[in-house]
Amino acid sequence: MIAAKLIDNVWATRKAESLNGFKFMLAEEIGGVHAGRRLIVVDIISAGIGDRVIVCTGSSARRMLGNDDIPVDAVVVGIIDEDCNFG
Amino acid sequence: MIAAKLIDNVWATRKAESLNGFKFMLAEEIGGVHAGRRLIVVDIISAGIGDRVIVCTGSSARRMLGNDDIPVDAVVVGIIDEDCNFG
Amino acid sequence: MIAAKLIDNVWATRKAESLNGFKFMLAEEIGGVHAGRRLIVVDIISAGIGDRVIVCTGSSARRMLGNDDIPVDAVVVGIIDEDCNFG
Amino acid sequence: MIAAKLIDNVWATRKAESLNGFKFMLAEEIGGVHAGRRLIVVDIISAGIGDRVIVCTGSSARRMLGNDDIPVDAVVVGIIDEDCNFG
Amino acid sequence: MIAAKLIDNVWATRKAESLNGFKFMLAEEIGGVHAGRRLIVVDIISAGIGDRVIVCTGSSARRMLGNDDIPVDAVVVGIIDEDCNFG
Repeated sequence: MIAAKLIDNVWATRKAESLNGFKFMLAEEIGGVHAGRRLIVVDIISAGIGDRVIVCTGSSARRMLGNDDIPVDAVVVGIIDEDCNFG
Repeated sequence: MIAAKLIDNVWATRKAESLNGFKFMLAEEIGGVHAGRRLIVVDIISAGIGDRVIVCTGSSARRMLGNDDIPVDAVVVGIIDEDCNFG
Repeated sequence: MIAAKLIDNVWATRKAESLNGFKFMLAEEIGGVHAGRRLIVVDIISAGIGDRVIVCTGSSARRMLGNDDIPVDAVVVGIIDEDCNFG
Repeated sequence: MIAAKLIDNVWATRKAESLNGFKFMLAEEIGGVHAGRRLIVVDIISAGIGDRVIVCTGSSARRMLGNDDIPVDAVVVGIIDEDCNFG
Repeated sequence: MIAAKLIDNVWATRKAESLNGFKFMLAEEIGGVHAGRRLIVVDIISAGIGDRVIVCTGSSARRMLGNDDIPVDAVVVGIIDEDCNFG
């Protein structure tokens, strides 16, 4: 997984029907030599802008949605505790 | 997923039979330290050159096509709203 | 998918039995900030050295071979038209 | 797989229910041109901070957990022997 | 797939039970802009240190092992002929 910070919402009115109702957010990788890499993630655990999160990617991301037919490859699976100073 | 801008069409007359009828486009990643990375994507939601899109990659891309047997690993799953200034 | 140029053949006499008969080629990514990245691809649509091709990677690559048991993660799925000046 | 060093624990009280009970750790890739890349991994073989480990990623990571429905894409599959000076 | 050179053995006494008996080696990517990237691979075709090999990654790597339950994401699938001067 990747440690990332949620930095904004992403709005896409025209999208795959199966994506209706999902919240898309812009995440930026934190820490390490890949810091600053950006990806768009789906959040279903009520994370917010500014939160540091754990992002799961690839086929494993679909396991978070309980439906293997959804075209999503990056999902927030956890919110890092505010008092967790790792790294 | 990746935020990318569609910058051109890609034509390939000789290709896998299962790819006939699909529209291939050149996308360029926007934002973050990987900005400028290019990939070829399939579009089935009528996106056009200049659009900023959400690209889903890997096995999840096949979920967009409703046929798990198609050799495609990157698909446009949404078109980012024109008035969405993220990042 | 990735736009790449086929630049050479790769010969491997000792290999997995399931790979017998497949043609391996060296491909170099073209365009974008990852230009120059190299990968070894399987070609089954008679592409040749110098051709610009569309390369599909990951589990989707196996869909091109009609056999999900073959240990291959990158396959040529299309040959870009010679008169296609994209990017 | 990737050779990485475990450098810290990562705590996330709010997370997917299926992740309860798993230990998350911060790993940093060692060796090669990607040294310093960081990822969050799950450990179920009692590795500790400072250990050099073998990290398996992607769908293969789920094979380590004996449950294909868990949204995890990076797992410690081995602890490199202390007296193994590779590279 | 990736062209890589095998540069050392990697020993991990404590590892997933399903990995017992497998030989782990350190491989370094050769050629292209990612030359020098390192990964740990499993070898079951008797490759040795110094050999240039074809490495298959991701879910496709498991196809080489004849058992889809093994947590491995990179496997040697071929040994490049000594007299093959590609690239």
